This record gives sequence, C-alpha cells and structure tokens, in this order.
Amino acid sequence: MAPAFPFSAIAGQDEMKLAMTIAAVDGSIGGVLVFGDRGTGKSTVVRALAGLLPTIRAADCPYHCNPDKEDTLCDHCREQIQSGKALNVREMNVPVVDLPLGVTEDRVVGALDLEQALTRGEKAFEPGLLARANRGFLYIDEVNLLEDHIVDLLLDVAASGENVVEREGLSVRHPAKFVLIGSGNPEEGELRPQLLDRFGLSVEVSTPEELHTRMQVVRRRDEYESDPKAFVQKWAEQDTEVRERIEKGREKLPHVEVTDEILERTSTLCIALGTDGLRGELTLIRAARAAAALEQADQVELKHLRQVASVALRHRLRRDPLDESGSTTRVQRAVEEHLPA
Amino acid sequence: MAPAFPFSAIAGQDEMKLAMTIAAVDGSIGGVLVFGDRGTGKSTVVRALAGLLPTIRAADCPYHCNPDKEDTLCDHCREQIQSGKALNVREMNVPVVDLPLGVTEDRVVGALDLEQALTRGEKAFEPGLLARANRGFLYIDEVNLLEDHIVDLLLDVAASGENVVEREGLSVRHPAKFVLIGSGNPEEGELRPQLLDRFGLSVEVSTPEELHTRMQVVRRRDEYESDPKAFVQKWAEQDTEVRERIEKGREKLPHVEVTDEILERTSTLCIALGTDGLRGELTLIRAARAAAALEQADQVELKHLRQVASVALRHRLRRDPLDESGSTTRVQRAVEEHLPA
Amino acid sequence: MAPAFPFSAIAGQDEMKLAMTIAAVDGSIGGVLVFGDRGTGKSTVVRALAGLLPTIRAADCPYHCNPDKEDTLCDHCREQIQSGKALNVREMNVPVVDLPLGVTEDRVVGALDLEQALTRGEKAFEPGLLARANRGFLYIDEVNLLEDHIVDLLLDVAASGENVVEREGLSVRHPAKFVLIGSGNPEEGELRPQLLDRFGLSVEVSTPEELHTRMQVVRRRDEYESDPKAFVQKWAEQDTEVRERIEKGREKLPHVEVTDEILERTSTLCIALGTDGLRGELTLIRAARAAAALEQADQVELKHLRQVASVALRHRLRRDPLDESGSTTRVQRAVEEHLPA
Amino acid sequence: MAPAFPFSAIAGQDEMKLAMTIAAVDGSIGGVLVFGDRGTGKSTVVRALAGLLPTIRAADCPYHCNPDKEDTLCDHCREQIQSGKALNVREMNVPVVDLPLGVTEDRVVGALDLEQALTRGEKAFEPGLLARANRGFLYIDEVNLLEDHIVDLLLDVAASGENVVEREGLSVRHPAKFVLIGSGNPEEGELRPQLLDRFGLSVEVSTPEELHTRMQVVRRRDEYESDPKAFVQKWAEQDTEVRERIEKGREKLPHVEVTDEILERTSTLCIALGTDGLRGELTLIRAARAAAALEQADQVELKHLRQVASVALRHRLRRDPLDESGSTTRVQRAVEEHLPA
Amino acid sequence: MAPAFPFSAIAGQDEMKLAMTIAAVDGSIGGVLVFGDRGTGKSTVVRALAGLLPTIRAADCPYHCNPDKEDTLCDHCREQIQSGKALNVREMNVPVVDLPLGVTEDRVVGALDLEQALTRGEKAFEPGLLARANRGFLYIDEVNLLEDHIVDLLLDVAASGENVVEREGLSVRHPAKFVLIGSGNPEEGELRPQLLDRFGLSVEVSTPEELHTRMQVVRRRDEYESDPKAFVQKWAEQDTEVRERIEKGREKLPHVEVTDEILERTSTLCIALGTDGLRGELTLIRAARAAAALEQADQVELKHLRQVASVALRHRLRRDPLDESGSTTRVQRAVEEHLPA
Amino acid sequence: MAPAFPFSAIAGQDEMKLAMTIAAVDGSIGGVLVFGDRGTGKSTVVRALAGLLPTIRAADCPYHCNPDKEDTLCDHCREQIQSGKALNVREMNVPVVDLPLGVTEDRVVGALDLEQALTRGEKAFEPGLLARANRGFLYIDEVNLLEDHIVDLLLDVAASGENVVEREGLSVRHPAKFVLIGSGNPEEGELRPQLLDRFGLSVEVSTPEELHTRMQVVRRRDEYESDPKAFVQKWAEQDTEVRERIEKGREKLPHVEVTDEILERTSTLCIALGTDGLRGELTLIRAARAAAALEQADQVELKHLRQVASVALRHRLRRDPLDESGSTTRVQRAVEEHLPA
Repeated sequence: MAPAFPFSAIAGQDEMKLAMTIAAVDGSIGGVLVFGDRGTGKSTVVRALAGLLPTIRAADCPYHCNPDKEDTLCDHCREQIQSGKALNVREMNVPVVDLPLGVTEDRVVGALDLEQALTRGEKAFEPGLLARANRGFLYIDEVNLLEDHIVDLLLDVAASGENVVEREGLSVRHPAKFVLIGSGNPEEGELRPQLLDRFGLSVEVSTPEELHTRMQVVRRRDEYESDPKAFVQKWAEQDTEVRERIEKGREKLPHVEVTDEILERTSTLCIALGTDGLRGELTLIRAARAAAALEQADQVELKHLRQVASVALRHRLRRDPLDESGSTTRVQRAVEEHLPA
Repeated sequence: MAPAFPFSAIAGQDEMKLAMTIAAVDGSIGGVLVFGDRGTGKSTVVRALAGLLPTIRAADCPYHCNPDKEDTLCDHCREQIQSGKALNVREMNVPVVDLPLGVTEDRVVGALDLEQALTRGEKAFEPGLLARANRGFLYIDEVNLLEDHIVDLLLDVAASGENVVEREGLSVRHPAKFVLIGSGNPEEGELRPQLLDRFGLSVEVSTPEELHTRMQVVRRRDEYESDPKAFVQKWAEQDTEVRERIEKGREKLPHVEVTDEILERTSTLCIALGTDGLRGELTLIRAARAAAALEQADQVELKHLRQVASVALRHRLRRDPLDESGSTTRVQRAVEEHLPA
Repeated sequence: MAPAFPFSAIAGQDEMKLAMTIAAVDGSIGGVLVFGDRGTGKSTVVRALAGLLPTIRAADCPYHCNPDKEDTLCDHCREQIQSGKALNVREMNVPVVDLPLGVTEDRVVGALDLEQALTRGEKAFEPGLLARANRGFLYIDEVNLLEDHIVDLLLDVAASGENVVEREGLSVRHPAKFVLIGSGNPEEGELRPQLLDRFGLSVEVSTPEELHTRMQVVRRRDEYESDPKAFVQKWAEQDTEVRERIEKGREKLPHVEVTDEILERTSTLCIALGTDGLRGELTLIRAARAAAALEQADQVELKHLRQVASVALRHRLRRDPLDESGSTTRVQRAVEEHLPA
Repeated sequence: MAPAFPFSAIAGQDEMKLAMTIAAVDGSIGGVLVFGDRGTGKSTVVRALAGLLPTIRAADCPYHCNPDKEDTLCDHCREQIQSGKALNVREMNVPVVDLPLGVTEDRVVGALDLEQALTRGEKAFEPGLLARANRGFLYIDEVNLLEDHIVDLLLDVAASGENVVEREGLSVRHPAKFVLIGSGNPEEGELRPQLLDRFGLSVEVSTPEELHTRMQVVRRRDEYESDPKAFVQKWAEQDTEVRERIEKGREKLPHVEVTDEILERTSTLCIALGTDGLRGELTLIRAARAAAALEQADQVELKHLRQVASVALRHRLRRDPLDESGSTTRVQRAVEEHLPA
Repeated sequence: MAPAFPFSAIAGQDEMKLAMTIAAVDGSIGGVLVFGDRGTGKSTVVRALAGLLPTIRAADCPYHCNPDKEDTLCDHCREQIQSGKALNVREMNVPVVDLPLGVTEDRVVGALDLEQALTRGEKAFEPGLLARANRGFLYIDEVNLLEDHIVDLLLDVAASGENVVEREGLSVRHPAKFVLIGSGNPEEGELRPQLLDRFGLSVEVSTPEELHTRMQVVRRRDEYESDPKAFVQKWAEQDTEVRERIEKGREKLPHVEVTDEILERTSTLCIALGTDGLRGELTLIRAARAAAALEQADQVELKHLRQVASVALRHRLRRDPLDESGSTTRVQRAVEEHLPA
Repeated sequence: MAPAFPFSAIAGQDEMKLAMTIAAVDGSIGGVLVFGDRGTGKSTVVRALAGLLPTIRAADCPYHCNPDKEDTLCDHCREQIQSGKALNVREMNVPVVDLPLGVTEDRVVGALDLEQALTRGEKAFEPGLLARANRGFLYIDEVNLLEDHIVDLLLDVAASGENVVEREGLSVRHPAKFVLIGSGNPEEGELRPQLLDRFGLSVEVSTPEELHTRMQVVRRRDEYESDPKAFVQKWAEQDTEVRERIEKGREKLPHVEVTDEILERTSTLCIALGTDGLRGELTLIRAARAAAALEQADQVELKHLRQVASVALRHRLRRDPLDESGSTTRVQRAVEEHLPA
C-alpha cells in the first residue's frame, strides 16, 4: 500500500482540517460529521491526519491496548499483567477503519467465533471493526445510508470508549476509543436529528472554485500518484510541524481555563440560536478549549469561541438541519451579534 | 466506568425527578414515559436515581434474587434453599439496563443457550435483558421506535413482575420486577394509544430556557467530566437526604389512607377529562398515595392529587395524545376547576 | 400469583358477563369477540369467570385430559388405559391462556421438539398453546392485530375441539376444546368479515360513565390490589351462587326445547337484518337455549331471543360491521319490530 | 369425529350439488370453483359428498394406492408386487383434505424428511397433502388468498393425476388424482383469469332467501348437532339412492355419444359468449356427457348442455369474470338464444 | 403418461408451428416467445413437436450427452472416453422440461448436493433443470412472471449452450443446449425490452374464431383424450412427413446462401422499423435461411424474408412492445413497402 | 468455446473502442461506464479487446499472480518464494469475468469455504469473482440494476487493486487489479451520482444508422458465426497492429509530460462545466496522457484533451447526469469554447 497523502499538502479545506485537529487534541469531543460534495477528498483528510500522528505503543492483542494505561486494558492484557508477565509491545500506526456500506451489526461489534464453537466447542469472541478502530479513527462514508441502529450503537461506543457485547452467552467488554468520522451527502437521505445532535462537530467541504487552487490540488495529486514516496518526503517537514502542534496541544488541554464570562457568552449564543438540549453548549466549550490548547493559550477567549462556533453548532439548529448553507449563515450571524470580535 | 452523575446535582427537571421518585417509592406504579427534546439528560436522571438508591442484597444467580423475599426467588435459588443450603449473598448496585434499538425478542426475554444445546446436549436457559433488569430499571431510549410486540411484552412483564418463557421445550419462569422507563421524541413516530395507556406516569422534559440554569447545567457537567469522583463526593450529602426520603416513603406507603372524598374527586376529574377506561383513576390514586408517603402524610390530600395529576393523566387523553403541551394544559385546566387549591 | 379478581365483584359490564356465562354453559357456541375501549377490564372478566368455575379433574398429560370422557382422551392417555393402567388424576383450575402478540404458528399448534430430535434422534411433539388451553379459555388481546391465518386456525380448532398437526413427519391429534375470547379495538384495524362471522357472540364494553360506578370499580380494584386474598374471601359467597347457576344451566341445556314458532321468529329476524349465511340463526337459537337453561326454563321463549339477539347477531350485519353502535341499534330496532315483548 | 352431514339432507344448493355430482362421475373434469357468501355451507357439501361415496380399497402406503389399477401404483407398491408379495389392502373412506391458509409448497407437495436425513443419513421423502388427497377431494377455502404459484401447482397436479417432486436430490413421482374444490368470496381478492380458466366448473352459492328453506336448514343442522348418529341414520336411505346414481353414471360415462350437431351447438354457444381458448367447449361437452350419464342417456342432448352451461362457462367470460351475477345472466341469455329448449 | 398429441393433428396455429419448425431446424436461433390468450394450447404445440422429432442417442449421464459430438461431452463422459471406456448409449425422446412458477435459481442451474456433502463430506453437483433440458426444449409458462435474473440466466445459457456453475467451491460446466420457449399473456405484466430483444422469434396465438376449426379442435382433442394411443396412430404418417422435412432442412441449412441484395433488403427493413441494435437483422437472416432450408432452396429469397419477418421482428419495435397487434401491423406494412412480393 | 470476435473487425463504435484502448494503456484510469441501447455489442467489444491483448505470465494460484511483480504477489505465492521455491508459471489469456445479475457479496469477494470448515475443521478461503478478474476485465451488464453496496465495493477494489476480506475469522488480502466495465441502459434505473462519479470514463453506444455499416456488421457477424476460426484468422494482422500500438503506449505512458498550460486549460474547462469535486480534472489529464502515449507523443497537447473530454467528463455534470445526449452536447460546447482547435 502506498503511504498516505501528506496532511500539509492538502490545499484548502481549512474547516475540515481544523475540526480534525481539534478531534486529534480532544478525542472525547464526539466525532466529526462531514457534509459535502463528492470528490472533495473527505477520506483523504482522515487518512492524512492519521498518517501524520505519532505511532502508538500497542500490546499484541486484537485491540492493540495501550500498555501505559492500565485501566483501559482488555481482559486478556490485564490477566497477563496480573499473572506477572510483561505485555509484548510493538509500535503501530494510528488505525483508520472504514465501515463498509451494508455492514452487519455482528461485523461491527464482533460476534461469536462460529468456527471455534463448532470445532472446539468453545465460546470464543471474534473481534469486530470496533476492536480494530480502538485508539484510531472509524470512518463511515455516507453515514446517512447506514441503518439507524448501527449509527446509534457507534455513537454509544464512541461516547463510552467501551464496546460491550452480551449475547449468545458471550459477555465481552473491550476498549473501543476512537474518533468517529461520518461523511454524508445532504442530497441523499438525511440523518435523524436525534443522531445529528450526537456528533460533536460538523464541517462542510466543497469543491474549490478558484482556478489556481484547483490546479494546485490536481498537480499535487498527480505528483503523488506518480511517485508517492518522493512526494511524502517533500512534505515531511511541514507534517512534522503539525504533529508537534497537536502533541503540545494535548499536553496543554487540561490546563486551559474557562471563565464564567466565556460560559455566559456560550449559553447566550446557544439560546439565541435555539439549539435543543445542552450538548451544543458543552461541545462549544470543549472545542474552544481544544482550539485554545492548540495555541498554547491559558484560557479560552472569545476568538476561540468564534473560531469553532460553526463546527460545534451548525448541525444542532432546528428546521431542516441539513440545509447547511442556511445553518452556517445563521450561526455566523448569531456569532457577529453575541460574540463580537 | 465513571460513577453516575449525582441526582441532587441535576438542575431543573423537577417533574422528571418527581416521577422517578414516585416510581422508586411504589415500583408497581407502572413505568414512566418521558417525552422530550434530545439532549435533555433523560438517561442521566435514571442513572442518577439508580446510583442514589441503597445497594441491594442479592443472591449469586443471573436474576440477583432478593434473599429476603422467599416467594420471589428463582427456581435455582429456591432449590438451593430447599436442599438446605444457604444462598451466597452479595451487595450490588441497583441495576440499570439499556434496551438497544433493534433488539430481538430473544435477547429481551432470554433464549435457549444454543452452545450448551449443541455441545452438551442440554437445554439450558440463556437469561436475557429482563433477567438483568430484575430489581432495577429498564431504560428504553426512543421507545416509539421499538416494535409494538416487544413494548407489549415489556409492559406485561413489568406489570406481573415475572418473566415466563415457554418455547423450544424451555419452560422458565423467573422474577423480573423492574421500573420501565421509556423515552420518546414525539416528533419521531407515535406510540399506539393502547400502549401509551399502559404506562403509569408520563413526564415532559425540555431544555431549560433560563440563562443561569443553563450555565449551571453546563458548568456542573463540565466539572463532573473533568473529575467525576470529586464531583460526586461534593454532592454526597444531598444525595443521602434524597435516599432517606425515599426509604421512609417506602415504609409509610401501605399506611396512607384514601378517603371517599378523594376518590370522588379523582373520578370527577377523570370523567371531566374523558379518559378511556379506569387506569387513569387507579394510577392517579396510587401516585398521590406515593406522593403523600414521601411527605410522611397519613392520608392523601387534595394537594397530592394536584401534584401528580399531570404525570398520571396527561398521556391518557383522547385525540392526539402526543400533543403534549395541549394535554398538559387540558389536565391543568381540569385540575383548577375540579381540584381547586 | 395473586388469586383472580372475583367475578361477582365486577361492577357493570352486564353484556360481557352475560356472553361469558352463556359460553360457560354451552362451550360450543363459538367464541366471544369483545369490542371496546382500552382499560375496561376485558381480560379481568375472562380470568374472573375462569377463577369462579369449579376445578376440573385432569389427567397428568400436557392436555390435562378429562379422565371421565374416554372418547376425548389424547393418544398417550388412551394407550395408558388400554394397557390397563389407571390415569394419574389431579384437580386443577380451568386454564386461561393468553396468546401473545406476534406469536408464531408453531407456538400455537405445537411443533417438533428440536432438542429431542437433535440429541436423541426422536421425533417428539412439543405441545403448543392450544394444548395448554384445552378445557379452558384462550384469550387473544387485540385479535385484529393477529395474522389472518392464525385467527383462522384458532377458529377451526375451537370449532372442531381437536388440534391436528401434520408436518415434518409428525402426525399428532390432541383434544383442544376451549372457549376463544378475542378482544379488539375497532379503532385499530378491522377483522375481515369472513372471520367476524365465525365468532359466536360479540359484546361491546365501554368505560362506565356514571360517577358512583366508577368510584366503585376503583375502590374495589384498589382494595383487591392491597390485599387480594381478603378481597376474594369477601366475595366468595356471591361467586358461589354464580357458579351454581352455571352448573345447573349446563345440566338443563339438552332438555330445553325450541318450538317452530321460535324458529320462525328467528329466521324472520335474520332475514329482516339481512345477515349473510345461516350462522346467525343457528347461533341465536343456541344462545337463547343457553339463556333459557340458565333460568331453568323448559323451552326457549321470546324473551330469551330478545336477551341474546344483540350478542348473537351484531357482528354479522353487512356494511361496516365494526360500526358497533350502528349495528347494535339496527339489531335492537329489528328486535322491537319482529320480536315485540 | 362426528359422521359427515348427509348429502341428501342439504336443503337447496342445487347447483353446487349438481357440480359435485358431475365431478364425482367424471373426476377428470378439472375441479370446481365455488363462489359465494360466507356461512353457506360450502365445505359441508364437499364433506357430505365424500361421506356418501363408497369406501375405497386401498393399499397400505402413504398414497392409499388403488390395488386394482396396477398402472397407477406408487413405486413402493409396484416394487412389492414385482417382488411377488401381495399388497396389504384396507377399506377406507374417500379422503377429504383441507388446505390450510398460508400453507407452504413443501407441505403441499411433500419434502425431504429432514429427520431421517440427519439421523440416518438417508434421503427419504416425507409425503405432503397431495399424497393424502389421492383418490379423494382437496378443498381450499378462500382459494383467492392462496399464492398463485401454489394454485398453479395444484391445478397442474390435478390435471395430470401425478405429483412429481424433484429437488434436493429427491426424485419422487406418486399418484395424486383428486378433485380440487376451491371456494372464494369474490369480495376478497380475485383469482387471475389465467387460473380461473383452469378450473373445470364453477358454482354460485348464496344464503337461501325463502323463510321455510331457512327454517329447514337451521332445524336440520340443529338436529344433526344434537345427535349426529341418529340424524345420519334417518337420511341413510336417500343417501344410498344418490350413491347408486353416481356409481351407475360412472359405468355409463364412456358409452355416452356426442353428435356433430351437439358439438356445433357447443361451439356456437362459446363463440357467441366470446370465451377465450377452447377449454370452455371441451369442458361443456364433458360435463354434459356426465349429466347424460347420470340419467343413463345414450347420447348427450340439448337439455344436458342447457343443464350444465352455467357451471361450465360462467367463469370463462371476459371482463370482470368475478361479477358472477352478470356472468350467469350472460350465459343464460346465450343459452336461450342458441340452445332453445 | 399418455403419448403427446400429434403435431400434424393441431388445427390452425400456423405461425406457432412455423416458428417451432424453424427453431427445430436451427436450434441457435435464440428461443421463441409466445404471446396469447389462455387455453390456446401453447404447451401442446411444444410437446407435440418434441414428440415428433427423432429419438436421440444419449450417454447415460445426467446431461444425456451426445456420444457423437465429442467436443460437447460433459466432464464425466469425457473422462470415461479418455480412460478408454466406451459410453453407455441409449435412445431417448427429445426432452421437454417445464419451468415451474416460483422456481429458485438453484433448481434451475443445479446446486451443491447437500446430502452428499453432509454424509460423505464430498462436494458433489446436483444437476438442475438446465441439465435435464439439454438437447431438448425448456418451456416457461408465463415467462413474464419469472424473476428477471432467472430469465436473464436462461437466455445466457441458451445462447452459449453451456451451463457454468461456480459457487460454494463447486466449479461445474456442462452442456445445456436447448430451445427456450416462453409463453406470456400480455395482459399480466410485461417483459423488460432488454429481455424481449434476446428472444429470437415471437409468435402470437389466439383462439380460432371460425366455427368448423373450433369443432375440429374440440373433436380431435376429445378423441385424443378418449383413446390417446389410437389417435396418435391415426396421425403417424403425417407426423412422419413433418419429421422428414425438418431432418432434411437441418442438412440443407449450412448450404443456403444469403446474397448482398437480401442482406440490403433486411437492413433496409429494420432501419425502416427502427429496431434497436442489430439482433433483429441477424435473426431475420438466420430465420429466413432456416425457412429456405425447409424448402430445400439454395439461397434465401424475398419470400423467405416475408415469411419470417413478423416472427423475427415483431417484439423488437420500440414503444409498447407488447401491443402485439400494433407491432404485427407495423411489421407487415413495412414488409409490403420494402419487400414487395 | 469459440474464439472472441476480432477487435478490428468491429465496425463503428469508435468512442467505445477509444475508451477501452485508453483503459488498456492506463489500467488505473478507473473503469468505463457504457450507456446505450440493447443489442449494440457492448460485451463483444470487451471480449474482443481482451482477446487481442498479449497473454500474461501467471503463477499457478487462484489469483494468477504476476510472477514478475513481487510486490503484488498473493500470500501463497510470496510464501513459496520466501521458502526458496520457484513459482509454477503458465501463459494465460487476459481474463474477462461477467458479474451475474443478482450476485451476492460473498460470490464477489469470496467467502469462507464451508465444506472445508465442516469436514476438515479448517478456515479456508474460497476465492470469488474478484480473484478471477485479477489482471483482466470485470464486466457488469446493467450495472444500474446491481445493489449500490456491491457497486461501491467493486469500485473500491478496482481503485485499490486489492481485495481485503475480513469476516468470520478470515483475514485475506489478495491482488485484484482489473478494469471495471459497467454497462447500463439509461431507460432502466439510474446510478446514484455518487457512484457515477467514481467511474473513470463513460461512453455512449448506439445502433449504427447508416445502411452499409449495418450490412457490414451483420455480414461480419454472420461470417463469424458460421466459421469463427477462419474469421479470426482473416483479421489477425489488423488485430496485431492494435496490440502493438497498445503495448508501445504502455511503455511511453510514464514519459508523457503535462505542462502548466494544459493543466490550466483542464481546470478552466471543468470550472466552466461545473463538475463536482476534482475527479473530473484528474481523469481528464490522465486519459489525455494515455491518448498521447498511444500516439507516442512526448507531451499532452490540446488535441488530446479534446479527444477525451467527452469520455472523461460527460458523466460528472450536475442535473440529470443520465441525460447523456444533453451531457455530451454540453461538454462539446465547452470544449469548443475553452479548448478551441
């Protein structure tokens, strides 16, 4: 397989890159929903970001457990440690798992290993795609075409960081901490508002309209396809800068403060927009904190709220939540009024 | 897993908290149906209440039988006692079971354990979610999306306190006493009136509209997510007060009287509202009695009827029973007229 | 399980009680269809009547055969007798079987016992709900939601008193004599006229509108739920009277005569109403004979025809047979004209 | 089981009785389709006719082969004879098989006996309902509700007198000669003209409208249900007369001639009616020949054509073939014009 | 089974007989689609033609391979020959296979023999209906009711003369050369144009309207049914003539020439009719060549084109291709104009 | 099987032949979508091109791996080489695989070999159609009738050149590099734009309207069918010329340059046409480069862009993308304006 396209070689797509970077800094932000035209390189950005992140230290189990966080180990790893054996540790790339269209629940959550059951009379667990996505990204192209109960399940697991499988006498619980990225074309079916609201951030991507940007994209892509290794090498330095900014942002995150004033502004904005529930406010605060952390700021400032308001709130407005252009404009108008620069 | 959010730290949501407390005092009240916007913390309240209740003494069986109530023991426990052996008893938290969307009847009621059947030639029962919910709460998010025959079955079991499974040569009967909590968004599909009427209480939740309440909710949630254990500790005393009020209410309940005058007022109110059948009257009386018990009152008074009229009757009105605001207003108008303060 | 609510403590519901009593006297009358609002205690009446009837002497087989009627024994019991062994006999309550929504044909009629087939290589029959209902009542809540072919099958078995299962190499025939009670809410789907006509009697139930009746119902129900045993004791004498009236009616039944004049009145009434087929006339004659027997009358009189005309004919009129109020009125008008008091 | 209602005690229903008698004389006439109201005793006529027919001599095999017609024996019987053994022969009633609603193709034609396949590793054939109907009647209530491909299959087998099953490695061919009787309510779904046309005869039944006929029907039915054996005894002589008329008709049948003039009249009538295809003419000739045979006439006469024209042609007219009243009138008008008495 | 109705005794149906004869001379012409009323004896013609053709020499394998054409043998026969053994050869009638309504793909193409797989652990192929049709006719009644993907598959196999089955680890390829005959009633569902076009010829059949033809058909049919053997004997000589004409036509076929002028006329005709693609032209040429061969002509002449234009082109016109009367008229008008006699 | 029709003997169909030749030179261009009337020989062109291409050297494995490209070997071949053994190599024709209508995902991607699992207790992989298509062509007739998730999967594999199967404990990855050819009739269902856009090229085919072309097509086809081998021989030299042009084009391809001016023209054209995303631009550049390589040109020139603009862009326009005539005209108009000759 060819190496991933370099993150920093992606021309345009600033909002998508911002949202992905925030999700990389605070993985508990709740997934990213990407709306947009076909052919705008949505999955390229995901793979590029994953390719840029530092490799992870992983135990040699189906969940590639983090050997440095004992409380998130799977049963197998925990038992090994409790019996006094060290874990086999390897370095691996951050995983990116694609959820195929028409996937069954069994393939997602894992299932009874029928072959072992039939031949050895043992109930063994056959891990699913959630196991493979642990500590990485789970990418769903055209999430609006997926069955509701699977989207629901994915959002539950993404929120809890654990996959709990209880059926056919199996009772398995394993770590499944990942950033969920769903892409959707608003022209083909809608997500129920109930599900929309559970995604943390949303972005809009579109085909660049400017001639030179387009030429740049095509030229870089053509170059990459002719000689992937050379192209990746050429952008390595810039990718390293991005990686470092993310790594430092992760360290800073727990130390960024949120003042009462910022909180009041957040609630005022959300009341003005009439978002249902309070997930909007919570996500806006968290996303702004991550944006601040990326800048090494000590506290969240108005500019951070302004920066992330669209990606945090756009998909939570009532009335036709998939009329994205309209939603964005409404968020921006409210931002101008309530969070003036 | 993090500890549950403290019940007393929940800002607003008074009606939901009232209904849940009544159901905690009189578990046979018949389940609670929660209508409302997304993101309003419906499942948080359920988990919070369960987290607050005293741990239960439980036998070491799949139904965590109550060792102190011999007539509700499962077959396994009963046999053990009859053969002169003591039950293994442990303390456990009140269980909260989530019913996943798209769940099959087999997973709900339990099924033949195929693996044991195939490998050992034995017909063993694989307990289902009803077994796990015994003595606790069964929470169904978006109950309106569940198939009718499963809702029906859940209501039957909740009403009888027993799960009876008879098929494929299995004949199992086990205790399954739980409070059924169903949430639904009236915008997405309706429950058939036939099912609506079988829920004991109903509540409406909505996003708080007051700025400081919102800030309070967001701040507390953010605080909880940053350090769950510290946050829970901070609210422990207030939670203890709620727990004690419930425990004393349970003791008081059988001693609260209902006078003929109260009964007449109840029927008059229901006739005025034109509720079908008499379940409305029965539930209203029982809910008022629980409300009285929570106050340690010796008999049900008008104020108790007034307090619970909406949660007991709102979902039993004819004509568009999911037009909640309308129903609530109609109940309140009738209360003003027939149960004047 | 708590004892059933006493039959004589049921307030109101006279038509339902009449129809049930007739069906108890002449079990071959063909089932009772109950239309009406939710929450009107339809299943309570069924269970109450069954609870009131004398216990039956039953063989120790899955069909609880009647040891005193040799020609209705199941194969197992017959073989035992033919091999010179006495049957094990026990006393049991009249069974009441509920047909769950969404039930499969296999669970109703019985099926091959897969476990025995797989583990012992034997074709054994796993009796179904029809076996359990033998000599009792089979109650179907919301019969209009059941699949047509199952209703059809139930009516066939109810009519013949035998369940014949022939498939997968099984060939089983067992007694299945029961009174079929189907309840339905006319607002939720209709029964095909083809099926309607096969029910013997139909009744309409509704919520009592009179204040003191309602209070009485609620008070009695509340009393019953507080202490079921004491409540049942309090009504025992009245229930005994009802039981005796039924038992004497059963003895009288074959001796009640039908004169040609009564027969002519019956046909005249049915022609006037335009009922399809002649099941209406047959049922009206038989129901009137049972009503006469309950009064220990020697022959059917006009008053008996008048008493049962509605329950026997209402569901057999053409044009919107579920427009119950209309049907009842039409039957009553025809009765006034053709069977004047 | 009670003995069947006597054929000669059936009041009215002359057309139905004529068609059934013709089918009893010439079993290859192609089945009878019965249209009509519910409750008009359609299945009673079928059972009554079967009960009246002489018992048949049958081999002890699942197809109750005719031991006197060697060329129609099943493989099993043929092998037994070829190996020099005599067949075990018993007397049995003419079978009447009901086809249940929702029946599967496997149950109709027979299937692989799974149990034998699994436990003994043998491919054995599990005979279906077609096997049981051999030499008798196959009755389908509400044939219009049956799936087309099963009706098609039944008509194919009825036409060829053989059931050929080839699947899953089975290759079985057994005699399946029966008279197919299908009843249908024209108000509930229609049969495709393609299928209609394949039935030999059709009859219309309706509720008698005359008061004394109705009283007669009800009285006889009531009498029969009170004491079936005595009632059957009372009508035995008349039933014997019918039986003898049928038996003599069967012997006469091959000797009844059809003149060219009769044939020309037949075609003229069918051209006038515009029946599709020539099945109408063939059936009319054959039915008239059977009617003549029942009268011991030497050749078909105009009166025989007149007698059977409606039952042979009514269901073959174009335009709304289920508008039965219309069709009958059209046939009668054409008969008056082209076959004047 | 009775012998088939004699081909030469079929009265009328000239176009159907022409098309069948052409298909018998050139089996690669691509199947015949028969449109028409019910009861017009479509399947009789097919069976009659098959009964008339000379018996074939066949190997003793499930495909009754032609022992004289080594390159079309199945694997089994080829292996036998390669191992030096002679094939067992028998004479058999040309097979006619009926495709039942609702048939599955597995029964058509063959499938894994489950029983052998389970009991002997061997992957054996269970041949399907295509195997049985090899070297004969495959008749589909009501082809318009068959699922598209099966019609498609049948047309593919008919075109290639081979059945290739690759699934579940099976990889079987066997000869399956047959003439596909599909009948359809244009009033019941249409074939997709995509499929229509793949049939070589199409014919229209209808009920004869002339009195004496009808009498003749009915008389002959009646005669045949009374004594099939005698009737077949009576027509034997005429059937022999037809057979010989077909056999000589087969020999002549490769030697019939098509001049450029004939080819130009063909294309001109098809352009005038606006047929899609060029299958129309190809089929017209080939059908005309077969018609010429039947007459022992040395080259295709205008009269041959005229003779077969309707059967080769009628179903390939755009716009409502099932409006057969319209299509035929359009073809005839174009023939008059472009191929004047 | 007969040899394929010669590529150079195909009369007309220039655009289809151009697209196929480009795909033969640059296999990564992304598949060809063919729209057009039935009977225009779409699959003939595919088979003809495959028949013309040089045979390939292939390892003796289910994927016929290329022994000369070690990095694309399957696991089996790689292991063999790593263990020091040489691969068995054979020459084979370029494979052409047809995807049958109604195919299952398992047959496409491969599946667990059940027979091996059951009999030998081994998890073996049963390769699917993607395995057989490796290094060749995968042809889907009527791609618009295929389920979306399978088209999606095919396009994914075609893009990556690898088939990854992970389920039921299998984890298989094998080379699957093929050119996907999908044909569709725009009159029967549409492809979703999402899928349309993923095909590299699209062509329109139609029935030739010119008399002599038609005669030529029919004559050649007739000649071919009479004696395939002689016909192929006759065209061998011309086919060799085409093959050589393709082989030299493949060698030239990596050396053809694209100037900034050409790139600007490309983007300008696509902006003018308003194609979504940038796949249009990328494909246009790559197709033009392949066209240049076929002419042995050193750099892409305007004429190459003009030559391939329609096949690269036509299916990517917004608004009714299947209104092909309209799309072609729009592309041509834009070409005239922005890429003047």
